[in-house]
Amino acid sequence: MNYGIILYILASVLEFVGAFMLLPFLVGLICGETQSIAFLIVAGASLLLGFLGRLKKPKSTVFYAREGFVTVSLSWILLSLVGAVPFVLTGEIPSYVDALFETVSGFTTTGGTILSDVEVLARCTQFWRLFTHWLGGMGVLVLILAILPLSGSYNMHLMRAESTGPTVGKLVPKVKSSARILYGIYIGITLIEILLLLCGGLSLYESSTLTFSTVGTGGFGLLNSSTADYSRYVQTVLLIFMLLCGISFNIYYLFLARKPKEALQSEELRTYLGIIAGSALLIAWNARGHFVSLGESIYHALFQVVSVITTTGFTTYDFNLWPVFSKTILFLLMIVGACAGSTGGGLKVSRLVVLLKSIKSEITQVIHPRSVKKLHMDGRGLSVNVMHSIRMYLVIYVAIYFVSVLLVSVDNFSFETNLSAVMAMFNNIGPGFDMVGPTGNFAAFSVFSKLVLMFDMLAGRLELLPMLVLFSVKTWKK
Amino acid sequence: MNYGIILYILASVLEFVGAFMLLPFLVGLICGETQSIAFLIVAGASLLLGFLGRLKKPKSTVFYAREGFVTVSLSWILLSLVGAVPFVLTGEIPSYVDALFETVSGFTTTGGTILSDVEVLARCTQFWRLFTHWLGGMGVLVLILAILPLSGSYNMHLMRAESTGPTVGKLVPKVKSSARILYGIYIGITLIEILLLLCGGLSLYESSTLTFSTVGTGGFGLLNSSTADYSRYVQTVLLIFMLLCGISFNIYYLFLARKPKEALQSEELRTYLGIIAGSALLIAWNARGHFVSLGESIYHALFQVVSVITTTGFTTYDFNLWPVFSKTILFLLMIVGACAGSTGGGLKVSRLVVLLKSIKSEITQVIHPRSVKKLHMDGRGLSVNVMHSIRMYLVIYVAIYFVSVLLVSVDNFSFETNLSAVMAMFNNIGPGFDMVGPTGNFAAFSVFSKLVLMFDMLAGRLELLPMLVLFSVKTWKK
Repeated sequence: MNYGIILYILASVLEFVGAFMLLPFLVGLICGETQSIAFLIVAGASLLLGFLGRLKKPKSTVFYAREGFVTVSLSWILLSLVGAVPFVLTGEIPSYVDALFETVSGFTTTGGTILSDVEVLARCTQFWRLFTHWLGGMGVLVLILAILPLSGSYNMHLMRAESTGPTVGKLVPKVKSSARILYGIYIGITLIEILLLLCGGLSLYESSTLTFSTVGTGGFGLLNSSTADYSRYVQTVLLIFMLLCGISFNIYYLFLARKPKEALQSEELRTYLGIIAGSALLIAWNARGHFVSLGESIYHALFQVVSVITTTGFTTYDFNLWPVFSKTILFLLMIVGACAGSTGGGLKVSRLVVLLKSIKSEITQVIHPRSVKKLHMDGRGLSVNVMHSIRMYLVIYVAIYFVSVLLVSVDNFSFETNLSAVMAMFNNIGPGFDMVGPTGNFAAFSVFSKLVLMFDMLAGRLELLPMLVLFSVKTWKK
Repeated sequence: MNYGIILYILASVLEFVGAFMLLPFLVGLICGETQSIAFLIVAGASLLLGFLGRLKKPKSTVFYAREGFVTVSLSWILLSLVGAVPFVLTGEIPSYVDALFETVSGFTTTGGTILSDVEVLARCTQFWRLFTHWLGGMGVLVLILAILPLSGSYNMHLMRAESTGPTVGKLVPKVKSSARILYGIYIGITLIEILLLLCGGLSLYESSTLTFSTVGTGGFGLLNSSTADYSRYVQTVLLIFMLLCGISFNIYYLFLARKPKEALQSEELRTYLGIIAGSALLIAWNARGHFVSLGESIYHALFQVVSVITTTGFTTYDFNLWPVFSKTILFLLMIVGACAGSTGGGLKVSRLVVLLKSIKSEITQVIHPRSVKKLHMDGRGLSVNVMHSIRMYLVIYVAIYFVSVLLVSVDNFSFETNLSAVMAMFNNIGPGFDMVGPTGNFAAFSVFSKLVLMFDMLAGRLELLPMLVLFSVKTWKK
């Protein structure tokens, strides 16, 4: 293991988080909030430590997948450890474990909170809380790759470990250029949403923070009612941008590269939109008794379906009250998740498509044992390695899910609470059902359960293996 | 598709079920119950139809895996359709769908019931109800293979489709001899348990019926209290025989063949016993508040753990009242299931072992990408095909599970009821939690949900593919 280079990158991460923390400090300064000093202190300390850590250039440039996974998972843990400190310093979240939970939930774009009242938070604190969603959405190391003058084999390994989906979203041959294009598109979408929300009468502060939460598909909100109290216009803007950020950013690149036909032929995109339409109609019909008209029912169902499948977690209605069929659809959508290469979490639609195709192929194999049929997606053949890793993804996913449910059940909350809490954390959604439903929060869990749920959030965001590698003895052997 | 041979085997199945139905008729005759006439009628009709169906010998002997799967699933459906008729004729289960549910639950050794009071049933009816467990436990086609003078390539395909576990339990080169050995061991175990229960003061009727339910790892009981009201001696006999019948019958063959060392080295056996011991201790500690002493707590925990992991479903205590941690362990044990080649259901311990090994190997692969390590079990290398089919098993298992939960949720029962009901049916356990807990039953589900649950029971017992193949258009094409 090349510790030198890992420490060097971790120091860069520290500098980045320090630099970004100056933003909430500025927000607090403008609003005249004394809490902003906390952000200045942590920013200063991070910048200093990061600078010192980067003094010693790594000797060896040996960097394999193993180093990539470890660097990414340690970076995310470091980000969270540092990002949580201001919440404690301002006194707004006195317990460090709770602050850490909130920060992990932020960076992983989960959006589940331990706060019962988010409206009492200072503006600088809220800004930071929602800004973590934006940073985590596209990925911090992708950002570092885009900006820092790094080069070498580790680029690819870092990108692979941090980006979402079964294959790596390299758009152009150079990793650095890919990272820049991705962040370019991301910033573009961010600016458009801020503008549209400003048009809806929200302040610059409200528009920008809500946008961070939307485009990162995070789900932290400014109000205790999540997004239920905003105007229909604002809700619709949020709905559209959640939907957009649940789509692979490769699709937008194809549009920019003037290949709209190729973009629209994506099987994953079509399946994603199909699932959303189908689920929204089913829920709209099933939960129609809760609304004055079927139109209203369709709107709220669509909003909730998009919010859950993109793993954002905004709510306009307490879906915990809906019939069990509607809740079960939402539960399943939590697992499905968004598209690969988006800012969303979950299993990813492309993995679902491949798994369903392989079930079909398995049945065909029984019927015609001598037929050897290669599976295709978007017209291209799927390699044996990709198929294998997707199946193993599900195996590991199921294992982590059930072990987590078992560990969390020690707290003796209801079965529904535990199953949906882990589902919501692991897939980076936010709210679950029962105690952790839209009107509840995660505060009541024990410290141990919170640690388990933090692991789940990180494992979900980093797609399992990077976090598991940390726990293997073999990783740390010479 | 070779329809001729499939019809021929189905006719044999009909003859077998007809012949076996004479047993409850005899029981009724001895006890002087008028209900027994129902069994005579159905037995007569089945024997006649079976005889007629067998008149036409199949021309072609072409028989592939496809025919094997279709024959086995159709046989089980036919068994259930016929086996359910007497319940309706006696008037004890007026609805045919309910009777079918009860019969599918019997043959698949699930043991979930739609009856709220089983003590009012006639003895002949109870005998038949519990005897279906015995027939389903080792498999009806295995029995036919053992007895009928069939020979040819289909033996292997039938055995493969009906026996449990990832690989086929062929003990000796000839399938017919293997089937005979398996049934020989099965009958031996049955006789010993009947004897031991007779020693405990139970009548021959009680001893034999309870034994059918135990050795088939079914779970139907004679009393509404399941097995809670029996003496500690009787409970202990049941406990031991559940435990024994959850073990692969290959192990007993190895003992008979004087290879005890090989038998005891089985990784699956060791894991199975380890899981039971660990789970029982955890539950005993967690639920100790429900019992007068820790000893009592250990006894009931062990009984329940063995009952669930062997997928029997007997209960000595309403575990629905236990803390959520204990219930979660039981929920996970439902998935694990018994050993391959036993009469139990579930995923099977050997599949779990292989899946866990492949997770470990996947992590190692990341850390040392160039290390190619073959996975082993019991000292033998696992083939790529077996590994593939075990992973696909989990993929299909998860898909069927969640689709079933979604379909059943239309009835609007609680989340916990639906999740555990499907889990309990799919893994052939019997009781779940909440509404379908030890003191509840499955009567309240709609006809549609009952059909879904019946599919799950059959899919669980026949290990997925045979039932899925029925639904593929390709199966029925020329």
